[in-house]
Amino acid sequence: MTTHREGHLHLNAFLMSTGHHEASWRLPESDPSFVSTNIAYLQRLAQTAERGKLDSIFFADGPALHRDIGRRPSGTLEPTVVLAAIAAVTQRIGLIATASTTYNDPYNLARRFASVDHVSNGRAGWNIVTTAFVEAARNFGLDEQPAHADRYARAAEFIEVALKLWDSWEDDAEVGDKAAGLWGDSSRVHPIGHVGEHFRVAGALTTPRSPQAHPLLVQAGSSEDGKDLAARFAEAVFTAQQTLEDAQAFYADLKRRAVEWGRDPATVLVLPGIVPVIGATEAEAREKEDELDRLINPEYARVQLAAQLRVDPEELPLDRELPDHLPSEDEIEGAKSRYTLIVNLGRRERLTVRQLIGRLGGGRGHRTFSGTAEQVADAIQDWYDQGAADGFNIMPAVLPSGLEEFVDQVVPILVDRGIFRSEYTGTTLRDHYGLARPANPHTVARLATAEVTR
Amino acid sequence: MTTHREGHLHLNAFLMSTGHHEASWRLPESDPSFVSTNIAYLQRLAQTAERGKLDSIFFADGPALHRDIGRRPSGTLEPTVVLAAIAAVTQRIGLIATASTTYNDPYNLARRFASVDHVSNGRAGWNIVTTAFVEAARNFGLDEQPAHADRYARAAEFIEVALKLWDSWEDDAEVGDKAAGLWGDSSRVHPIGHVGEHFRVAGALTTPRSPQAHPLLVQAGSSEDGKDLAARFAEAVFTAQQTLEDAQAFYADLKRRAVEWGRDPATVLVLPGIVPVIGATEAEAREKEDELDRLINPEYARVQLAAQLRVDPEELPLDRELPDHLPSEDEIEGAKSRYTLIVNLGRRERLTVRQLIGRLGGGRGHRTFSGTAEQVADAIQDWYDQGAADGFNIMPAVLPSGLEEFVDQVVPILVDRGIFRSEYTGTTLRDHYGLARPANPHTVARLATAEVTR
Repeated sequence: MTTHREGHLHLNAFLMSTGHHEASWRLPESDPSFVSTNIAYLQRLAQTAERGKLDSIFFADGPALHRDIGRRPSGTLEPTVVLAAIAAVTQRIGLIATASTTYNDPYNLARRFASVDHVSNGRAGWNIVTTAFVEAARNFGLDEQPAHADRYARAAEFIEVALKLWDSWEDDAEVGDKAAGLWGDSSRVHPIGHVGEHFRVAGALTTPRSPQAHPLLVQAGSSEDGKDLAARFAEAVFTAQQTLEDAQAFYADLKRRAVEWGRDPATVLVLPGIVPVIGATEAEAREKEDELDRLINPEYARVQLAAQLRVDPEELPLDRELPDHLPSEDEIEGAKSRYTLIVNLGRRERLTVRQLIGRLGGGRGHRTFSGTAEQVADAIQDWYDQGAADGFNIMPAVLPSGLEEFVDQVVPILVDRGIFRSEYTGTTLRDHYGLARPANPHTVARLATAEVTR
Repeated sequence: MTTHREGHLHLNAFLMSTGHHEASWRLPESDPSFVSTNIAYLQRLAQTAERGKLDSIFFADGPALHRDIGRRPSGTLEPTVVLAAIAAVTQRIGLIATASTTYNDPYNLARRFASVDHVSNGRAGWNIVTTAFVEAARNFGLDEQPAHADRYARAAEFIEVALKLWDSWEDDAEVGDKAAGLWGDSSRVHPIGHVGEHFRVAGALTTPRSPQAHPLLVQAGSSEDGKDLAARFAEAVFTAQQTLEDAQAFYADLKRRAVEWGRDPATVLVLPGIVPVIGATEAEAREKEDELDRLINPEYARVQLAAQLRVDPEELPLDRELPDHLPSEDEIEGAKSRYTLIVNLGRRERLTVRQLIGRLGGGRGHRTFSGTAEQVADAIQDWYDQGAADGFNIMPAVLPSGLEEFVDQVVPILVDRGIFRSEYTGTTLRDHYGLARPANPHTVARLATAEVTR
């Protein structure tokens, strides 16, 4: 099933320090000095993405420092703050950040995304996550993270509350009648009075309805709960898929679930991740990727893989395949689908632990692809044409060079082929993704009543 | 007691929609169209303050829409998002925002202010409030707000946690050894392991230590609990004082309390609010103020005053003095000192409710002052010279014009008199306020140990 024939594909640039390859910081070109906290660097990346007319940029996030900082650049800023600083130096590019429904209050988070939407004139997107690591729980007074199902139940109610808050002001609440001394019409502002299982939120938002009304809702969970949450609420879905067949199956499944939730499947855009490594020739691209893989510190990476697989590092000799006995997905609390993806990748291709580490080093489970710009464009078009993607989450192995190469070399090919924009045609992130600004339910109900009583 | 003789005075611009006078939006010059959500407008205000070499700008905040939106421009953005967008278009001006210790988690809030400090290259300040209105509580699952003393106990622990988090990375945690593949030194990152009455926070911050290490800590509570919290932690204190004598008493009291907490009183700067109304002549300034007061809608204002005084609006006839029987400060939960200030102002000057509304309409309890630029400069210097202030919280009655007049007319006089800077001499907010960057306790302890064992 393809639902995107009317438009063109969508491209998001997933930005992360010196790039998605974990050894990217060790290249001569990289300056690993706190790149994730250097706002001038992040602003330049965003401007590069905007030069390529990409739909959006994206920063992942989690409220805990859960990794050994030896292995790769660590340390991040709170991403809505970063996006606001980027909004001020860009005009069109969409601005997406992860925020957790488990470790935030909906009132605060709804305000923050509405505020980013205001300061960017309608370019905010929220990647909804439930946060799957115990280190986060322990920064918020808990000993263990809430169970997977509980986190997703809370997430669904959290989103409901946020939607109510974003609609709590009607668009015409402002009156501005200086002569009468009446600034606003309080009858057009609606305290939400939400009483639910996880939240009680009485009031209206502090913030007038924003340019997009709702930030673009993004989701990336691929577990059963995650896919259902995405099908119910998400407008763009980031996903890690290694093969065309898996990606087609995921795509079809998500669109089907969206229909089950009563939604038009064309309003749920699926964007698999791709880690492009671009060279002037295929051989040059391969050599770039090999150079990166050689720079991976296998001991660090093995510890990381062991943690993902919930086994002891000693059980993963570098030059053997994965052990036969690994936990089942049911036993994994959080990052379930990523767990299965890693195990399947290792088993399907009979990779040694060392080889698996190389494959994961590029994109942590996302598909890596080395080749010429033409070949990268082919890889993108292939999945797009074959019902595996509405667009892609571009995860450059090395930044800033990988993004510059993508924008300068791959994007023009996609434009020439008529499957990507040459100019922005709208101003908001929703415009870029071809999604309508949501109507305000209070306004709709009021006008319907007026119609009936006329 | 004056402690500021070495330096000069400090000026903060408190920015709020069309200005602090509640009728400012009704003037012909004002464009009340969602000014508080118009980032270009807010950025221009910040640039004006920076042109005047002011120390900082400030946005107040509360996580609830608790007012009738008829009376004056309502609707605000989350201010750390606003400050980040302002940081991107300014270079030196300090950036202060209110955030609540009652309705935030310390891990999230510490990240957000550290992030603003990073994106502004060291210009962040946090005005610590406990939030004193029930509408906020009801947006966070509570029926009533926590008791005053409980809010302040939580606030103190909240600040302690935030300070630990801001110090959790030593400044030299980054190693960046590409050859060895070692990015950071994990032994220089310290999980805080905080276990307290209100919070348990295990980990280190996600965010490397910021340019200022700690954002400037600002406080504005004037109750006993508020003053003690300020004396213990605050580096700048905003306060509403109507008379020189009251301001001197507050100033001396706060400096004394700071000494009791073992602090150098020169590191706690007291900034009373002043609402200047500037005219070419004194008569013109008076007429400006009168025009504003005439534009107040007395019925709206009476409802607001009644809420502040915890009485029924019917008990406040416009042309009578305040009723004899009003609650005592002890009975007031939140905004205690503001309550007492309003009652004292009405009683001391035997104002009718209508007159009191006029006085409060300018600055909600802050001192209003109408006069020529020279007279405003005199009023500022007078309090500064007489031990009532280390600087001022400038609250223009009308924006943007009142800020432009202050910067263009009053600041040059203060510079000529040698009591205000003509250029910034540092780059961070702490530099502007003459405050040192805090040492990292882990680094200090490590170096002390190294010293002993050498």
